[in-house]
Amino acid sequence: MRIGAPGAEKPVIRVDESHYVDVSDLTPDFDEKFFATGGLDLLAAPVADRVARGELHSFAGERIGAPIGRPHQILCVGLNYSDHAAETGQAVPDEPILFTKSPNTLVGPNDDVRVPRGSTKLDWEVELGIVIGRRASYLDTAEEAAEAIAGYLVVNDVSERSFQLERGGQWAKGKSAETFNPAGPWLVTPDEIGDVRDLGLWLDVNGVRRQTGNTKTMIFDPFFIVRYLSQFLVLEPGDLINTGTPPGVGMGHTPPIWLKPGDAMELGIDGLGSQRQRVVAPR
Amino acid sequence: MRIGAPGAEKPVIRVDESHYVDVSDLTPDFDEKFFATGGLDLLAAPVADRVARGELHSFAGERIGAPIGRPHQILCVGLNYSDHAAETGQAVPDEPILFTKSPNTLVGPNDDVRVPRGSTKLDWEVELGIVIGRRASYLDTAEEAAEAIAGYLVVNDVSERSFQLERGGQWAKGKSAETFNPAGPWLVTPDEIGDVRDLGLWLDVNGVRRQTGNTKTMIFDPFFIVRYLSQFLVLEPGDLINTGTPPGVGMGHTPPIWLKPGDAMELGIDGLGSQRQRVVAPR
Repeated sequence: MRIGAPGAEKPVIRVDESHYVDVSDLTPDFDEKFFATGGLDLLAAPVADRVARGELHSFAGERIGAPIGRPHQILCVGLNYSDHAAETGQAVPDEPILFTKSPNTLVGPNDDVRVPRGSTKLDWEVELGIVIGRRASYLDTAEEAAEAIAGYLVVNDVSERSFQLERGGQWAKGKSAETFNPAGPWLVTPDEIGDVRDLGLWLDVNGVRRQTGNTKTMIFDPFFIVRYLSQFLVLEPGDLINTGTPPGVGMGHTPPIWLKPGDAMELGIDGLGSQRQRVVAPR
Repeated sequence: MRIGAPGAEKPVIRVDESHYVDVSDLTPDFDEKFFATGGLDLLAAPVADRVARGELHSFAGERIGAPIGRPHQILCVGLNYSDHAAETGQAVPDEPILFTKSPNTLVGPNDDVRVPRGSTKLDWEVELGIVIGRRASYLDTAEEAAEAIAGYLVVNDVSERSFQLERGGQWAKGKSAETFNPAGPWLVTPDEIGDVRDLGLWLDVNGVRRQTGNTKTMIFDPFFIVRYLSQFLVLEPGDLINTGTPPGVGMGHTPPIWLKPGDAMELGIDGLGSQRQRVVAPR
């Protein structure tokens, strides 16, 4: 995890619901350099020592940041749950649809989501996020893809549908406003997640359940996605991949439901923790 | 400019065709932090001193890197010349089309362009690139946009058309392979460029002129583009914006012309210098 003020988060290892080990003396951040230099492996022994010595701190009211620093790129897979594709009125894709978000959209899991100026169709998307652990290009197999993954986290792929779909033909325009990528609270390493292809996802708006899904209904699973994307571009350590959303987005309702200032989103994934964002008015 | 081995370039100021002033003791790079902290202004006096004292170095065979470090994001405007839109068979857009490239596509102006594995339709695009000089959001006017621009440079928006158009609906997939964004040789500041809305552009393949254009036929000019994009996302210092290509891409010929290993591209823009890339086989 990363905790502290926005832009000044420190890296910590979560021990339990209320305690962490501070590792900010061992690495300045969980970022591209950290993952590229095998930082996760290098932390294991010193963290075990600190836990054994009882060097624990309390979360007690600390703000939680995104669990990784701003990545080199945020890649997103579109329409990756067959029932979500159906609710948008689009065909199930033959191969993963790639789009991107600006990396500076990354915020903490409980930070406010700000309505962009001119927004009329603000929407939510609970998603499983993948963090890349090593430079990866032309991966041959699902096994190689699995080895390139540092961990998983919850993301909310916040979307402005009128910007995305009615303003000129490419999706990035409706995916990149500030605060549009809440992430966390935790990065969970592959050894701790169990079967990433069988995790429940959910999202509530103002206490009403809007999205319910399970990663087992993904069209393309995380290993397929990482291998696939590595054929088209070079993945860097610390890159974030949002893997698509299950049914129940605002656009999928009849009539559609759009977020407005004052709304609250809560969302989570089995074993990956939960988020809560308040929607706030434009700047 | 930045010169030296890939990944280890040092920042320099070009004095003339064969000489530069070394500023690597004043800034580690021309990157986000440099532009955010007013680095361009801060360099003016010491560089003038060094020129006056004759502290010049010779380029003599040094590799030229991209003139900026890897940016936070590479944004691209599609179909921004009316005659290019026509050659692709698409309508002139009502507002700028935004797509993105992976930031790690950035390479030097004379570096090799590598054919991606599986590529069948590799294409060229000479473009005017804009480098952002300050954090920018919700700019109100063209004047504010002009003040947010650090400078301009030549880019080749290398594209794989089958990946871009036949593999799932969003353009980023065909724009993001390694070496797909040669940039440079120089970043030219706005005070030195003259009228950015009247610059000739050209591109040759194997010595045959393929693209000829002028920025005066852009549908959306650089100031419009920067102001427009700032309504949808936050621009960071050092961000790169590719502003679209004039007619004459390979896809626009009948029959189409695709790049193959051994081909040479040469391209340039009035006052911004020229590039030369060799096309090399897949890894």
